[in-house]
Amino acid sequence: MPGRWCVPRIWQDRRMTADPQTHDTDDLTRLVIGVLGGTGDQGRGLGRRLAMAGHRVLIGSRDGARAKLAADEIGGGPLLDGGLNHDIAAAADVVIAAMPWEGHGELLDALTGPLGGKIVIDCVNPIGFDSHGAYALRVPEGSAAQQAAALLPDSTVVGAFHHVSAKVLLDPEVDSINQDVLVLGDHRAATDLVMAIASEIPGARGVYGGRLRNCGQVEALTANLVSINRRYSAHAGIRVTDI
Amino acid sequence: MPGRWCVPRIWQDRRMTADPQTHDTDDLTRLVIGVLGGTGDQGRGLGRRLAMAGHRVLIGSRDGARAKLAADEIGGGPLLDGGLNHDIAAAADVVIAAMPWEGHGELLDALTGPLGGKIVIDCVNPIGFDSHGAYALRVPEGSAAQQAAALLPDSTVVGAFHHVSAKVLLDPEVDSINQDVLVLGDHRAATDLVMAIASEIPGARGVYGGRLRNCGQVEALTANLVSINRRYSAHAGIRVTDI
Repeated sequence: MPGRWCVPRIWQDRRMTADPQTHDTDDLTRLVIGVLGGTGDQGRGLGRRLAMAGHRVLIGSRDGARAKLAADEIGGGPLLDGGLNHDIAAAADVVIAAMPWEGHGELLDALTGPLGGKIVIDCVNPIGFDSHGAYALRVPEGSAAQQAAALLPDSTVVGAFHHVSAKVLLDPEVDSINQDVLVLGDHRAATDLVMAIASEIPGARGVYGGRLRNCGQVEALTANLVSINRRYSAHAGIRVTDI
Repeated sequence: MPGRWCVPRIWQDRRMTADPQTHDTDDLTRLVIGVLGGTGDQGRGLGRRLAMAGHRVLIGSRDGARAKLAADEIGGGPLLDGGLNHDIAAAADVVIAAMPWEGHGELLDALTGPLGGKIVIDCVNPIGFDSHGAYALRVPEGSAAQQAAALLPDSTVVGAFHHVSAKVLLDPEVDSINQDVLVLGDHRAATDLVMAIASEIPGARGVYGGRLRNCGQVEALTANLVSINRRYSAHAGIRVTDI
């Protein structure tokens, strides 16, 4: 079972300072974030916003050249680079799984080694589309995040960023995204860290959303947001009230 | 398949007026609302708020005397009465299913007749609890609402009011509830009507949330809200952004 060692050292240090508020942002942005399947809309969108927040972001792909191109396209510069998924998984401190659901299990299974001892943030939504719109797919493990946890016994899997519209993340006109990011997981230090990362994106707020076993409905809720977007011509997100 | 006749006549009339804004509230509150399993917290809470909005509300129970007691307890007066589930199902224009999940299928199956031709609003959340908190139960039909639709072929089933805290609804100190009510269903006129009913509760806003096949994750999300309430000592709800 993954323990405290899965939380990056600099975050542990932060938690031990007398005044944890002082160096929050500085410490956090020192974390290098890898994005697996990062050439897709969601991966590029998250990569772009996290680089804007000050992180070094490594975009991963099966095709290293395509990954470098995607990194350039979303801003380039010293904070953004691209490479093969395997290399990015090895080089990053925290890794976001943003591949399509179809390739989710296979890719993670191949990266068990380099992802060991790391926090893996799963933002994959297993949803299908037909003539009636989007619908949730059945996942034998209960959710994409639980599938990741089953495949990566040496990593700490956290579910997050399911509802953030890629279009909004990639839109240069949007300075602030008006929504909460539900963060789910079974390890407090890991969910705290991911909540802090989510809150670095202007307008977003990381909110603890429950244990990993309750991640399936959060992933599936994306199908409802697709329906809402169609009905209201919007890029809907959610806010949690009374917190 | 249920058709337009499932929408109460007065709502149809409203939709045909030249200015649909004019008589919205007046027309709507003429609808008598029945609450099956209405002596539970959720049923009493919704009954109370809808009577406050001006509806005649009939609380249903297996025990008619207990139902009358519950109706008195949440305000009494000319707008609130109680009776047997079967009688309430027959007397109401629109019926809310608010029984515990354990009795959901059995009770609805017994009321197929009196619920025929009516809109049935299902607010039941199939969730379980253990030492780790709340979790979503597997429902063979996909959701409580889909189970209701399968059992009630002559009714129009709409899912709504899943996330509204009974404690908040019953709290006399709370004038306005700060959250959206996701409304799910396959019939536009019926979801429109239920959205309008939800929006009668001060602070609440009815929002279309998708087709019935996407109701499972909305019901299950209640488990996440339970986790959020524990973590943040709150009565959390959700708001949909950008609409």
